[in-house]
Amino acid sequence: MEFPSLDRLHPEPSAPEQELLCIFGTGDFGRSLGQRLLHSGYRVVYGSRRPHSCGPLPQGAQAMSHEAAAQLASLVFLCIHREHYDFLETLTPQLQGKVLVDVSNNPKKNLYPEANAECLQRLIPGAHVVKAFNTLSAWALQNGPSDANRQVYLCGNGAEAKQAVAEVATKLGFAALDKGSLSAAKELEDFPLQLFPEWRMPLYVAVGLTALIFVYVVIRDVVYAFVEQGKDNSFRIMVSLANKVFPIVSLIMLSLCYLPGVIAGFIQLYRGTKYRRFPDWLDRWMLCRKQLGLIALGFAFLHMVYTLIIPIRYYVRFRLSANTISQIRENRTSVFDTTTAWRTDSYYSIGILGFSLFLLLGITSLPSVSNALSWREFSFIQSKLGYLTVFFCTLHTYLYGWSGFLRPYKWYMPPAYMLSLVLPSVLIVLKLLLLLPCVDRSLTRIRQGWERTDMQDGSEKPLLT
Amino acid sequence: MEFPSLDRLHPEPSAPEQELLCIFGTGDFGRSLGQRLLHSGYRVVYGSRRPHSCGPLPQGAQAMSHEAAAQLASLVFLCIHREHYDFLETLTPQLQGKVLVDVSNNPKKNLYPEANAECLQRLIPGAHVVKAFNTLSAWALQNGPSDANRQVYLCGNGAEAKQAVAEVATKLGFAALDKGSLSAAKELEDFPLQLFPEWRMPLYVAVGLTALIFVYVVIRDVVYAFVEQGKDNSFRIMVSLANKVFPIVSLIMLSLCYLPGVIAGFIQLYRGTKYRRFPDWLDRWMLCRKQLGLIALGFAFLHMVYTLIIPIRYYVRFRLSANTISQIRENRTSVFDTTTAWRTDSYYSIGILGFSLFLLLGITSLPSVSNALSWREFSFIQSKLGYLTVFFCTLHTYLYGWSGFLRPYKWYMPPAYMLSLVLPSVLIVLKLLLLLPCVDRSLTRIRQGWERTDMQDGSEKPLLT
Amino acid sequence: MEFPSLDRLHPEPSAPEQELLCIFGTGDFGRSLGQRLLHSGYRVVYGSRRPHSCGPLPQGAQAMSHEAAAQLASLVFLCIHREHYDFLETLTPQLQGKVLVDVSNNPKKNLYPEANAECLQRLIPGAHVVKAFNTLSAWALQNGPSDANRQVYLCGNGAEAKQAVAEVATKLGFAALDKGSLSAAKELEDFPLQLFPEWRMPLYVAVGLTALIFVYVVIRDVVYAFVEQGKDNSFRIMVSLANKVFPIVSLIMLSLCYLPGVIAGFIQLYRGTKYRRFPDWLDRWMLCRKQLGLIALGFAFLHMVYTLIIPIRYYVRFRLSANTISQIRENRTSVFDTTTAWRTDSYYSIGILGFSLFLLLGITSLPSVSNALSWREFSFIQSKLGYLTVFFCTLHTYLYGWSGFLRPYKWYMPPAYMLSLVLPSVLIVLKLLLLLPCVDRSLTRIRQGWERTDMQDGSEKPLLT
Repeated sequence: MEFPSLDRLHPEPSAPEQELLCIFGTGDFGRSLGQRLLHSGYRVVYGSRRPHSCGPLPQGAQAMSHEAAAQLASLVFLCIHREHYDFLETLTPQLQGKVLVDVSNNPKKNLYPEANAECLQRLIPGAHVVKAFNTLSAWALQNGPSDANRQVYLCGNGAEAKQAVAEVATKLGFAALDKGSLSAAKELEDFPLQLFPEWRMPLYVAVGLTALIFVYVVIRDVVYAFVEQGKDNSFRIMVSLANKVFPIVSLIMLSLCYLPGVIAGFIQLYRGTKYRRFPDWLDRWMLCRKQLGLIALGFAFLHMVYTLIIPIRYYVRFRLSANTISQIRENRTSVFDTTTAWRTDSYYSIGILGFSLFLLLGITSLPSVSNALSWREFSFIQSKLGYLTVFFCTLHTYLYGWSGFLRPYKWYMPPAYMLSLVLPSVLIVLKLLLLLPCVDRSLTRIRQGWERTDMQDGSEKPLLT
Repeated sequence: MEFPSLDRLHPEPSAPEQELLCIFGTGDFGRSLGQRLLHSGYRVVYGSRRPHSCGPLPQGAQAMSHEAAAQLASLVFLCIHREHYDFLETLTPQLQGKVLVDVSNNPKKNLYPEANAECLQRLIPGAHVVKAFNTLSAWALQNGPSDANRQVYLCGNGAEAKQAVAEVATKLGFAALDKGSLSAAKELEDFPLQLFPEWRMPLYVAVGLTALIFVYVVIRDVVYAFVEQGKDNSFRIMVSLANKVFPIVSLIMLSLCYLPGVIAGFIQLYRGTKYRRFPDWLDRWMLCRKQLGLIALGFAFLHMVYTLIIPIRYYVRFRLSANTISQIRENRTSVFDTTTAWRTDSYYSIGILGFSLFLLLGITSLPSVSNALSWREFSFIQSKLGYLTVFFCTLHTYLYGWSGFLRPYKWYMPPAYMLSLVLPSVLIVLKLLLLLPCVDRSLTRIRQGWERTDMQDGSEKPLLT
Repeated sequence: MEFPSLDRLHPEPSAPEQELLCIFGTGDFGRSLGQRLLHSGYRVVYGSRRPHSCGPLPQGAQAMSHEAAAQLASLVFLCIHREHYDFLETLTPQLQGKVLVDVSNNPKKNLYPEANAECLQRLIPGAHVVKAFNTLSAWALQNGPSDANRQVYLCGNGAEAKQAVAEVATKLGFAALDKGSLSAAKELEDFPLQLFPEWRMPLYVAVGLTALIFVYVVIRDVVYAFVEQGKDNSFRIMVSLANKVFPIVSLIMLSLCYLPGVIAGFIQLYRGTKYRRFPDWLDRWMLCRKQLGLIALGFAFLHMVYTLIIPIRYYVRFRLSANTISQIRENRTSVFDTTTAWRTDSYYSIGILGFSLFLLLGITSLPSVSNALSWREFSFIQSKLGYLTVFFCTLHTYLYGWSGFLRPYKWYMPPAYMLSLVLPSVLIVLKLLLLLPCVDRSLTRIRQGWERTDMQDGSEKPLLT
C-alpha cells in the first residue's frame, strides 16, 4: 500500500490501470456486476452465445463470443446458472490457467451433492476456480456496498487466484474475507439460502410451550367452569387467557436463556478445567441464548400491552359497574385494604422495572449497540443486568401469586403461574450457589485458565497459558 | 499488500515512510485534517497568507507561505471556501502536476452553476483535482472514523491522483469509495446538504392525509352534533378524534407501502418480462416504501398509546360513573353480552398482534439489523410478515366496525374508518389474485428472468441469463 | 494494491505466500489466534515451555521450545501474562530485530505504573514491540471479525514493524488503526477494562436527583398526611410517588442535556470567537449530553408505563367506585365540566406527542441509524426536534399544574412538579434569546469562523479559515 510515486502523475494515458475483466452471462447479476466494474475503473467484456442480441449492456462494455472474450482476460466471472456449465467444457483451452469466479447460487439447499464451484473445478481442472460474490444481490452490486453488504466471502484452492479476486472486491469497495479452500464453497452457496437457522429451535420451543400452556389454562379456566358450574367462560380466551399464556412462556424462556450458563459453570467446576468441550446439547443450547431471550422479550411485550388494555375491555367495565351496583343495592360498604394496595402496587412496580430492564437487554443486543460496547461492558449488561431481570420477573410472579399458593386446586391442577415459577426458581438457586465466595473463587480461577490437574505437574501448567 | 521484508526492520531512520502533505487553510477543517494526518504518520505543512499569525496549529505542523508550501508537497489539500479560490491562480506554476484535493462544501444547493471542484480544475488546468473528504465533518476527522463516518467518497479525472488520495484516506482509517470522474463532484457537494430527500414525499402524504381525515371527522363528530343537536363536543378533538385520525392514516399508509409491489407484479405479468423499466411514478413510489411504512408505524404507535390512555380520561370516567348511577336510579339491570365480549376482545387482540408484527417490521428495518440478515431472510420478513401485518390491521378495523356498516350515515358521510378500509381491502384482493397458483407460477418464472417473447427465438433466450 | 500479474497464477507451489509466524503461549487467546492465522494462510509455530504436553493446538500448528520457535519467525505474538515476561530476557539474542506483538491485558487498571508493552520494550530493547490485538477477545478471533470487532488498534515506535502487524491484521480480515507511538499502549491496555466511563456522571446525576426528589415527595405526600391528618398514605410510594419522581427527573435531565449547548452559545457570543476552548466543566458536560438524554428517555418511558397502569390499580378502582357510591347515597349530581375535559385531554395529548418525539430522538441516536444520516440531518433532528421535545414536555407539565400554582403549599413546600419546571423554563427562555434575529446572526457568523478581533487586522483574518 505504498504511496505512488507522484512523478507518474503527469497527464498521460493511464492505460496500465485499466485491467480488462470478462463476464460470462448477461442476466441481472452479470449486468450489475459489469456496471460496477466499469464504474470502478475496469474495462469489461461480456461473453455471450448471441453477442449481437443479448439485450442492454452497461455503457462501455462490449459483447463477443465466449471464446474471444475468455481469451482477452485473465479473470472470468461466471454469471450463469449451474445447469448451463456444461458448455464451458468446450472452452477448456481458452480457460486454461485463468481465474474463474463462480458467483452462482442454487434455488434450494442440497439440490446437488457437490458445490457448484467444485463441479466447475472438476469440469475445467486447468483453471483456478474461486467462489465469490454469491452472497451479494444484483441490487447490492448496483448500489455499492452498504453497511449491510460490505463483505465478499471467497474461497478457492489457489492463494494467488484468491488474492486477485480479493483485490477486485476491494476495488469495488467491498471487504474480502477468505473462507479457505474450495471445500468451503458448499457453505458459501448455502449461506444465501438459509432462513433464520439459529432461530429455529427457540421458535419451536416457544410454539410448543405456548400450545401446552394454552391447553392447560383452557382446561383449568374454561372447561372446568363449564363442567362444574355450567358457565360459559369461553370469551375469556381472547384476552384473559392469552394474558396468562404470554407471561408464563416469557418467564420460562427467560430462564431457559440463562440456565445453560449456570449449567456450564457447574460442569466446569466438576471437571476442574475449561478446556474440555461441553456436551453437544449444551453447546447448541448456549448458541441460541440470544434468540431465546429475544423471543421471551416479545412475549413480555405482549403481556404488557394485554395488561394495559384490561381497563378498556367490555367485560372488565361491566364487572366493575356490576360490583358497584351490587354494593349499593345490598348496602354493603367495602373497606380499603392497605395490604392489598401495597401488594398490587408492588407487583405492578416490580413488573414494570423487570420489563424495562428486559427491554434494555434487548436494545443492547442490537448489533450496532453491542458493537459499540467493550467486552467488559457487554458482559456486565448481559450477565449482571440479565440476572437482575430474571430476579425481578420471578419476584413479580411470586407477588402475583401471593397467598394463592395455599388455595385448593381445581381438578388437582395448580394455577399455571405456579408452573412457570419452577424453572426460574431453580435458576436463581443455582446461580446463588455459584456466587458463594468459595465456589465463585474456584470458578474464576478455572475460567482464567487454571486446571485441576494431577499432582506431579499441577504447579507449572497454568504459568504460560 | 505483500508482507514487508523484515530484514528492513532493523533500527534505522524510517524517513521514506513519512510522506509530506500540504494543507491550504488553517480553519477548523484544515486543523483537524492536519492533526489526523500527523497522527497517522505523515508530515504536514500549512500554506497560509500570514504564516506567522495563523493561530494554533496542530503539534508538529509547520506554516509557511502558500508558494513555499505548495512547492514542497505533491499533494495539496484545499481547506478554503470557494469564494477564495481566485488567489490560487497566482500559484499556477507551483501547483502544476500536483494533486489538489478539494474538500469544500457550499452553504446551500445550487449556489453556483458549476461544482467547486470543476471550477478549481478550470482555474488550474495543469493540476489533478480530486474531490474528497467533503462529506466528513471536522469532528469526524478529529475523532477518527466511527461506524458513522467510515467512508470517504472521491471523484476526479486522473486515476493515479485518485489512487493517491484513496491511499491517504485508507491510512487515516477511512474506506475510500470511488464515485467516478470529476463530473460527479456536484453530487458529492450536494450530499452533506441534503435533508431527508427520501422522506419528503411520504411526509407530504402523511400530512395531507392527516389534514383531510381530521377535517372529515371534525365535521362528522363535532360540527354535526353542534348543528343537529346543539351539543358542544369540541373537547373530543384532543384525544377521541386524534385517535380516529391516527389509525386511519396508519392503515392507509401501510397499504400505500405494499401497493406498489402488487402493481409492479401486475405490470410484469402484463408485459411478460422483468427487463423493462417501470413507469417513473412507480419507481419513485417503490423507493419510498420503507419511509411510508415507518411513518405508518409511527401513527400506529400513537394510536396504541392514545387507546391505552382512554380509561384515565376525565370524560371516560365521568361517563362510566354516570352510566352506573343512571342504572341504579332507573333500577335497570344490564345483562352481560357474550357476543360483545368476544367481539371487543378479538378486536383488541388482533390489533395488538398486528401492532407487534408492525413493530417487528420496524425493528428489522434498522440498518444494523437488516444488515445481519441474508437476502432471503430480509425478504421473508418484509414480504410475508408484512402482508400478515396488513391482514391483521385490516381485520382489526373490520372487527371495530362490525355491524356499524349497516347503520345510517350522518349527513351521508360514512364513518371515517370505512374510508380507511378501501385501500387495504383492494390490496389484499390483488395480493390474493397474485397468489393464485397459475398466476404465481407465471410471475415467479418472469422474476427468474424468463421472458414472454416472439415465437422464433423464445426458446434460447433464457438459457444464459 | 496492484493487481497481481496473472502470469504467476499457473499451478506452482505457492510457497512464498505462506509466511511463518510464531506464537508464545498456548492459552485460549494463543490457540484462537493461531487457528485464525492458519485459516488465513499463514504457517504457525508455537513456543512453549513444554512443547510436548501443551494441550490441543490448532490443526497444522507445531510446538517447539521458545528458542527454536523465535528463531524461525520474524514476527512473534506474545500471548502470555505480564507476570511471566521475565523469562523473555533469556531469549534476547533470538528476539533481536524481531517484531514482538504484545496482546496482553491486565485484570484491572493501574496495576502497574508502566504499560505492559513498554515494560516489554525495556526488557528487550533490540526488538520492535508493537501493541495490538488486545482489544479483541479470543471469541472474536475464533469467529472472525464481526461488525462489533472489526478494528485492531495498534501502536509502536517502529513504522515498519507496525506496518507488518497491520498487514497481518488486514489479512485476518480486521481493519488496523494506528494509534501512534508505544506511549499510547497504556490507553490501549485500559480500553478493554473500561466500564461505561461516559455514563458515569449522568448516572450519578440521575441517582442523586431521584433520591432527592423521592425524599421530597415522601415528606410532602406521606409524612405530611401522617403528621397533620394521621392518615397512612405509605402504600402510595410504590406507584403514585414513583410516578411523580420519574417525570420530574426526566424533565430535569432533558433540560440538562440541552442546557450546555445554550451556555456554549452565550460564551461564544461573549468571547466573539469559537476558537477558544470552553471551560473544562462545560466540555465534560457537553460530552455526556447523549447519555443524559438517553437516561431521561428511560425515566420518561417509566413515567408513561406507570401512568398507563393507573386504571388497573386497586386503589384507583376503589376510589372511583367509592366516589360513585357516595354520589348515589348523597344524591348528588356531578356536572360534566368541559374545561376540565379540554385541559386533561390536552395534557395527555401533549405528553404523548412529547414522548413520541423523545423516542424518535432516542432511535436516531442508535449508532446504525445516526450513521445513515448526513451531518445536516443529524443536527436537524438532535437540535430542532430536541428543542421541540423540551417544549412539549414542559408544556405538558404546565398543563398538569394548571391552577395548582396558586394553591397554598403544604409546610411551605411547593408541589414537586413546580421544582421540575425551573430548569426547562430557563432553558427555553435562553434558547429564545439566542433565536432573536440579531443574536442569531452574530452567533451564526461566529460559528462560521468569523472572529471579533482588534481593529488593526480584523479584516483579513476570516478570509482563509
